[in-house]
Amino acid sequence: MTTGHVFIAVSLDGYIARPDGSLDWLTGAPDGPSAPEGEDFGYAAFIERMDGLVMGRGTFDVVAGFDPWPYAIPVVVLSSSMQNDDVPEALRDKVRVKQGAPREVMDALGREGWTRAYIDGGKVIQSFLREGLIEDMVISRLPVLIGSGLPLFGAVDGDVRLEHEATRTYPGGMVQSRYGVG
Amino acid sequence: MTTGHVFIAVSLDGYIARPDGSLDWLTGAPDGPSAPEGEDFGYAAFIERMDGLVMGRGTFDVVAGFDPWPYAIPVVVLSSSMQNDDVPEALRDKVRVKQGAPREVMDALGREGWTRAYIDGGKVIQSFLREGLIEDMVISRLPVLIGSGLPLFGAVDGDVRLEHEATRTYPGGMVQSRYGVG
Repeated sequence: MTTGHVFIAVSLDGYIARPDGSLDWLTGAPDGPSAPEGEDFGYAAFIERMDGLVMGRGTFDVVAGFDPWPYAIPVVVLSSSMQNDDVPEALRDKVRVKQGAPREVMDALGREGWTRAYIDGGKVIQSFLREGLIEDMVISRLPVLIGSGLPLFGAVDGDVRLEHEATRTYPGGMVQSRYGVG
Repeated sequence: MTTGHVFIAVSLDGYIARPDGSLDWLTGAPDGPSAPEGEDFGYAAFIERMDGLVMGRGTFDVVAGFDPWPYAIPVVVLSSSMQNDDVPEALRDKVRVKQGAPREVMDALGREGWTRAYIDGGKVIQSFLREGLIEDMVISRLPVLIGSGLPLFGAVDGDVRLEHEATRTYPGGMVQSRYGVG
């Protein structure tokens, strides 16, 4: 079975993007993930262990505009409305669309040989959490309140207790915690 | 001028209480604030520096039921609907009601000699933050998702950048960060 893994930045008030999907509060942060010093906050080591990335349509619409394309691993976009033909031509060898419930998708990816999947985007993370498909989460909290936006977390069926594994702090004020789930 | 200081526990998904005000997710946590080991997570050292506590009506309605009364410092309840006569008799030497905008209230408390006020409750913290009346916040994040409840943070007029001062972790998985504001 493929396991899900989260590596995500969040504002102090729990948002992963502004209401329009914008990440300017993150990339504009002093010593934020785009810090010129080359600090990657453990991202390269994280992604090296992943066989691919599963994201929602909303996240894809934001990252599709990134130039250069930021991912060296295969990307699967979960969408019931999008088709493979809707993927911009330049990305067709890197991105494909899948439909289905989270567990079905993970089962299918497992049959393709995926052991670990990077799960990204608020709604996708929430639905995979509810289905017990997330094994661990690395949450990097920036010291800024943005007031509104797309939340990292949403409704749960009951309390979800996590296991705190480690916390690191960075000079720019980011607090990065790793949690095991379930 | 009296400065405002926050010391609060929050779930990993950003709630300070369940929708009905309940704190069972917090007090029931292994090594949570009520941990029998006597660990107080810095609370005694924090409150020792405070001249009094300002809370909203919602928070008062929850803590009014606590026995014994948990505060050794004077408590001011901000409420436009409550009167001093509405304070239970047993608490009248410990609790009084004030009305007015956050800055007016802090000015009045300053004239009474308060230097530092402990600011508690989601709505009160949010309004004091918006008015620039909070000097620092100690946020203790528990490793549990509760899915819904009263949020610590709310709308802001613009991005509020905070200064991360320190983070400590505790054996039960609490991650406690101190931030300076403004």
